[in-house]
Amino acid sequence: MKKYQLMAPGPTPVPSQALLAMAQPMIHHRTPEYEALFTEVRAGLKTLFQTQGDVVPLACSGTGAMEAAAVNTLSAGDTVAVIRAGKFGERWVEICRAYGIDVVELAAPFGQTVPAERVAETLQKTPGIKAVLTQHSESSTGVLHDVRGFAAVTRTSDAILIADAVSSLAIADLQMDAWGVDVVVAGSQKGLMLPPGLAFCALSDRAWARTKTSTLPKYYFNLAEERKFVVKAEAHFTPAVSIVVGLREVIRMLEAEGLQNVFRRHDRLGRATRAGAEALGLELFAKATPSPALTSVVAPPGVDGEKIVAAFSKSHNITIAGGQGEMKGKIFRLGHMGYAAEFDTISALAALEQVLAELGVPVDFGASVRAAQKVFAEKP
Amino acid sequence: MKKYQLMAPGPTPVPSQALLAMAQPMIHHRTPEYEALFTEVRAGLKTLFQTQGDVVPLACSGTGAMEAAAVNTLSAGDTVAVIRAGKFGERWVEICRAYGIDVVELAAPFGQTVPAERVAETLQKTPGIKAVLTQHSESSTGVLHDVRGFAAVTRTSDAILIADAVSSLAIADLQMDAWGVDVVVAGSQKGLMLPPGLAFCALSDRAWARTKTSTLPKYYFNLAEERKFVVKAEAHFTPAVSIVVGLREVIRMLEAEGLQNVFRRHDRLGRATRAGAEALGLELFAKATPSPALTSVVAPPGVDGEKIVAAFSKSHNITIAGGQGEMKGKIFRLGHMGYAAEFDTISALAALEQVLAELGVPVDFGASVRAAQKVFAEKP
Repeated sequence: MKKYQLMAPGPTPVPSQALLAMAQPMIHHRTPEYEALFTEVRAGLKTLFQTQGDVVPLACSGTGAMEAAAVNTLSAGDTVAVIRAGKFGERWVEICRAYGIDVVELAAPFGQTVPAERVAETLQKTPGIKAVLTQHSESSTGVLHDVRGFAAVTRTSDAILIADAVSSLAIADLQMDAWGVDVVVAGSQKGLMLPPGLAFCALSDRAWARTKTSTLPKYYFNLAEERKFVVKAEAHFTPAVSIVVGLREVIRMLEAEGLQNVFRRHDRLGRATRAGAEALGLELFAKATPSPALTSVVAPPGVDGEKIVAAFSKSHNITIAGGQGEMKGKIFRLGHMGYAAEFDTISALAALEQVLAELGVPVDFGASVRAAQKVFAEKP
Repeated sequence: MKKYQLMAPGPTPVPSQALLAMAQPMIHHRTPEYEALFTEVRAGLKTLFQTQGDVVPLACSGTGAMEAAAVNTLSAGDTVAVIRAGKFGERWVEICRAYGIDVVELAAPFGQTVPAERVAETLQKTPGIKAVLTQHSESSTGVLHDVRGFAAVTRTSDAILIADAVSSLAIADLQMDAWGVDVVVAGSQKGLMLPPGLAFCALSDRAWARTKTSTLPKYYFNLAEERKFVVKAEAHFTPAVSIVVGLREVIRMLEAEGLQNVFRRHDRLGRATRAGAEALGLELFAKATPSPALTSVVAPPGVDGEKIVAAFSKSHNITIAGGQGEMKGKIFRLGHMGYAAEFDTISALAALEQVLAELGVPVDFGASVRAAQKVFAEKP
């Protein structure tokens, strides 16, 4: 028996509490039962997004919510600045261009970030920029971008800040209202530890005002229309009912843990994983602030990163992820987000040692586990 | 104890086989496991859609797939004809107008249909119509539109036929390839008896050719891009993994039953429900061919249809549906689609009798049950 373990940067394992709640008989979405369910979920989402505003759920995956964020606040011919330092930064560019939005790319090599000062300069140099679009956690590289800094400089202009928090919500602190982030996008399958298929857009008052002037066509993703239902604890179109049922369970779990403790847990898992990888002489791919959601590691010289991913799966029944696009074969990525705890990290590192040995890399068995244990031995 | 029973026109109950399959540990969507899962599902979908072409799944609910059908085959300024005889016909109109598509409305009073001859006349009178959009089963009224007839007349023009089969797939016969339907849209929560959150677009070669000239903006719903992944048994964006896992189970169930038997079962449930309602002296709302997915019944004189829905819920813990929009209060709707069998119909009718008596309507107890039993006693 090899126990199946999902350690990719999303989807993450789903806790049994949520799986079993979702395995209950289907309920209808136009009933008092759903209204009661959604009323609890709506309040919980505000806590998780750290906003007083309403969070709009959409039945789609994260990319759909990214698109919703753009098409509800922008118009064709608008100019935006995009932080492009990974595959999901590229996705912002692709979405904008698909809708005729002009993009000023703020690019950085993958594994690095863009300092807030560069955003400030761009906003000054190019007047009329309508929005700055970024990831919070860029899960293709494992870098955490400085959303707080981006918000500070964006607030001094007329632009709004749109942050993709798909792999940071309930993982890394993102104080939407306090920092002044205008749109936060998230999905169900990362920090919320649910199956994919439910995503969210939270909008500031500034962003809601933009929806009134946005002329891009939309129907299914019309957030202003959907909001009219959200405030009544209803849904415009048939919602992803079962995932909303699971969401109530994970909101209860996260509230019991406490949001600050959730962030601390992920921070510790990230530090332990990085310490473990470095104890094996491996190079971390993220040269900027690392994301607490995942750790991207450069494959050792002469070893194909894809072979590491394959060996995790074949020898140990553990799913991790390789590099995407130009990073394919060069890196591998260990997820430690959502339903992830200390001994998952211990297992991942122990498996990494065994995989490297299997691929002919000299390994000091136990070295990475020891390094992680030292992190876990620190007071939380 | 009152057993909860979901008898609305979708979502329908989910069989335990699917619920428990979906309660298994989450898998990742970029793995050989998902590829094997999707390879089986992809083949099963072709059988269910009665097409040789690929069926594209989308993580969204039915409305998202309706929008995808329109924005991938049409362009702003195009003219289309829409069969508008219910709330979902109105939805086609709304989607088209949101994207700047001109609509020729082929309207009929709710509860009725539009004959194929009228579609033919419109196509002749208004040259240049790019598409005819219709429902197959209009679940707001309980009418089955003549998609076969619409296809026959549409094939003689340059227009394509786009059919919303959300509440008819795996319920009523819709021979996509044989009849020449160009786009078929469906969802997971009706005949496929799964949670909502997964929807589908199947396109004919004519429709795929249209995707090359369509200029409407799209990204998440770009079917031509998604198809490149579907043919490799992959997904462009994170799919609704858990519902796809459930889909494999229901495809196996439906294949074991046999598609013709699935249609026969729904036909019998529909006939029995209608016979039962008429045995109580109630008027059926559908004046045209009734949908085998649901039965819409006119509330008895002096009785608010919403009170019937409420009494089903409060007295018997059964969810049925009321009328939508202008039909609110005037009708109630009994679903008998998906995971629905003969004794569910018996229960629904027995409950209907008790509800009517409770609301002061004189009832001959057992009359509707007897009428349904007579239908079920016929050879299948």
